Amino acid sequence: MDFDFAKGVSEPGSSKIVLLVLDGLGGLPRESDGKTELEAANTPNLDQLAAEGICGLQQPAGWAVTPGSGPAHLGLFGYDAQRFVVGRGVLAALGVGFGLDMADVAARGNFCTVDDAGNVTDRRAGRIPTERGAELCALLQEQVSIDGVEVFIQPVKEYRSLLVLRGEELSGEISTTDPQQTGVPPLEPRALDSAAEKTVGYVKEFISQAREILKDHSPANMLLLRGFAMRPDWPTIEDVYGLRCAAIAAYPMYRGVAQLVGMTPLKTEDSFAAEMTTLSEAWNDHDFFYVHWKRTDSAGEDGDFDKKVALIEEVDKEIPRLRELNPDVIIVTGDHSTPSKMKSHSWHPVPTLLWSPLARRDPVTTFGETACISGGLGPRMPATELLPLAVAHAGRFGKFGA
Amino acid sequence: MDFDFAKGVSEPGSSKIVLLVLDGLGGLPRESDGKTELEAANTPNLDQLAAEGICGLQQPAGWAVTPGSGPAHLGLFGYDAQRFVVGRGVLAALGVGFGLDMADVAARGNFCTVDDAGNVTDRRAGRIPTERGAELCALLQEQVSIDGVEVFIQPVKEYRSLLVLRGEELSGEISTTDPQQTGVPPLEPRALDSAAEKTVGYVKEFISQAREILKDHSPANMLLLRGFAMRPDWPTIEDVYGLRCAAIAAYPMYRGVAQLVGMTPLKTEDSFAAEMTTLSEAWNDHDFFYVHWKRTDSAGEDGDFDKKVALIEEVDKEIPRLRELNPDVIIVTGDHSTPSKMKSHSWHPVPTLLWSPLARRDPVTTFGETACISGGLGPRMPATELLPLAVAHAGRFGKFGA
Repeated sequence: MDFDFAKGVSEPGSSKIVLLVLDGLGGLPRESDGKTELEAANTPNLDQLAAEGICGLQQPAGWAVTPGSGPAHLGLFGYDAQRFVVGRGVLAALGVGFGLDMADVAARGNFCTVDDAGNVTDRRAGRIPTERGAELCALLQEQVSIDGVEVFIQPVKEYRSLLVLRGEELSGEISTTDPQQTGVPPLEPRALDSAAEKTVGYVKEFISQAREILKDHSPANMLLLRGFAMRPDWPTIEDVYGLRCAAIAAYPMYRGVAQLVGMTPLKTEDSFAAEMTTLSEAWNDHDFFYVHWKRTDSAGEDGDFDKKVALIEEVDKEIPRLRELNPDVIIVTGDHSTPSKMKSHSWHPVPTLLWSPLARRDPVTTFGETACISGGLGPRMPATELLPLAVAHAGRFGKFGA
Repeated sequence: MDFDFAKGVSEPGSSKIVLLVLDGLGGLPRESDGKTELEAANTPNLDQLAAEGICGLQQPAGWAVTPGSGPAHLGLFGYDAQRFVVGRGVLAALGVGFGLDMADVAARGNFCTVDDAGNVTDRRAGRIPTERGAELCALLQEQVSIDGVEVFIQPVKEYRSLLVLRGEELSGEISTTDPQQTGVPPLEPRALDSAAEKTVGYVKEFISQAREILKDHSPANMLLLRGFAMRPDWPTIEDVYGLRCAAIAAYPMYRGVAQLVGMTPLKTEDSFAAEMTTLSEAWNDHDFFYVHWKRTDSAGEDGDFDKKVALIEEVDKEIPRLRELNPDVIIVTGDHSTPSKMKSHSWHPVPTLLWSPLARRDPVTTFGETACISGGLGPRMPATELLPLAVAHAGRFGKFGA
């Protein structure tokens, strides 16, 4: 739904919406009995929600798109993921929970190896361990000093790090220094528009100091920078629908994406039961709750069908506690599919249920990929329509026209 | 999927995709048992593909559009048929296999009858037989001579012909000379933009010579020109997805449309078995194979239900040969529906199956219009998403965003 249109029909209310995201929920059938992870799981409570509500499958970012976590969540939050694009630097900052100011510029830093002539010989510095990456980031943080700008350098994982420049009149319109091949030197950073000239000066100074600091630390004796970006300034969900939104997610990446659309992150622990407790405690303070459960995706990425099944069952057990809160609308879905068979995100549409006393029931009585094909939401719903549909079921949209 | 987006996520690969188009595949049920042509056909091999893959119905050019062969195929090739429009002159050239250069201007020529005052009395020259049309085209080809431009005139069918002008700085922005009514003279061709003035001069000279040459050949004593156009310069499928594409089609029209999107036409014979042989022989040289089977459409146009059934069964028998090649993705669909009941193209959505080891199965176990409604692709899939979806299943799209 168009944001201006939504704003025009939104009405205040006291109803509550819960969006429960089981990361990587969608799967593919196993050989033995043709069941997906969700179909193999024993989920009496999710099945009951499906039976009482309306089901279907949603596409996070279009028919054939395999989305990363950022775009996939933006789709669920009602933002067209192909239009609302977040730079890699910003995603890296969200991933480590770095609190980006609107004026900051963020970039991904990749430690690499260069030879005596300065040519890149390994773009990933032999995939140094995460601990080593952290040590080198600490060294750079301690020694780099640039007049006019504050510099933050934080470890991400292995050879990957985050660079943030904080200052005045900065711009993220800067080209990558990663040559994408070995045997050549790193590229010079270039301003992609004239407003970025000043920032490019800072970046060059940073690279020059980093080269000096790292030179004796082979294989990580240099750094490549890519994905320069600033935090986007988008309308929030509260701006558009008038919903006060909370994010309950144990992982920084998901709290970060939620903050991009104006949600308040709540402190929680890394278990689904703990997230449900956080939800109960915050129930009176918000209208919309995004609850994120990461581990289903991790099990899929590990190719562990049975573990993904068990993790879905863990969620199912907590559904009665969720229902005791008397929400007006519950959505259960994933941000994308992560079939254990593929050990990766995929393009397959994601099973989805919307429960509400005002949902028009459909023939679906169990929550699973095959069953959802016959649901009232259809087999290929655009993810961006889910949040507006929840708002409608929550009685927060007035009539359009007379 | 947007072309720039697709280009951004495309990755190289060695997987193979086959798009099998049974022209006019979709049908309407017969009275006796309520079965369509496809449903009445005995198709154990297509049914197996449907059972192992994912099914649905696609719309070539939108909900209510009855497409011609050009737009219908462009949809299947991932080009929005309402945006990527081919002029009639170009379609006429494709239809007779005329090799258009990018600088040529093509138009449809319709022989017509004019009276002594020069007013049109029959816009189709009494529908002269195809042989007579060919004789008159040969006469024009022999006698017309225009300084500065090369002229080609070729027969199409009955009163219809093709005019091509080849020269420098030509333009297709020229208005029709067909008055669309009788009792008035042909219209003067006009330049629709200033760059077309020079070409209009050549067209006027052609008309003047043609009037003189044809004057004693009533009822075909004049010619009307329409659909002036140049060959469009679009991104190719290889530009967008990195696929080396081959077209296996016995009819020039389909090889021509395929060439507009950058496919290499392969020499083949007019039988489905021969097309499968061509496919086998070219298997190692391309990534994407478009295989076109014309006769199902011809049977539909003739209103011959039983013949269409038999022609579908002929295709089914060859499916094992197709599978022996071990393609990564097989799509079976039509370019549009041609119900024998209507003896014409129609707007009805077209039964479609996508087979791949990574397809998420759905409940559909037979390939037919009614069964496909319950498939995972849904009952109204936009045709333009089919090719990108095949590319995703072939493992040639990377992740979008992090």
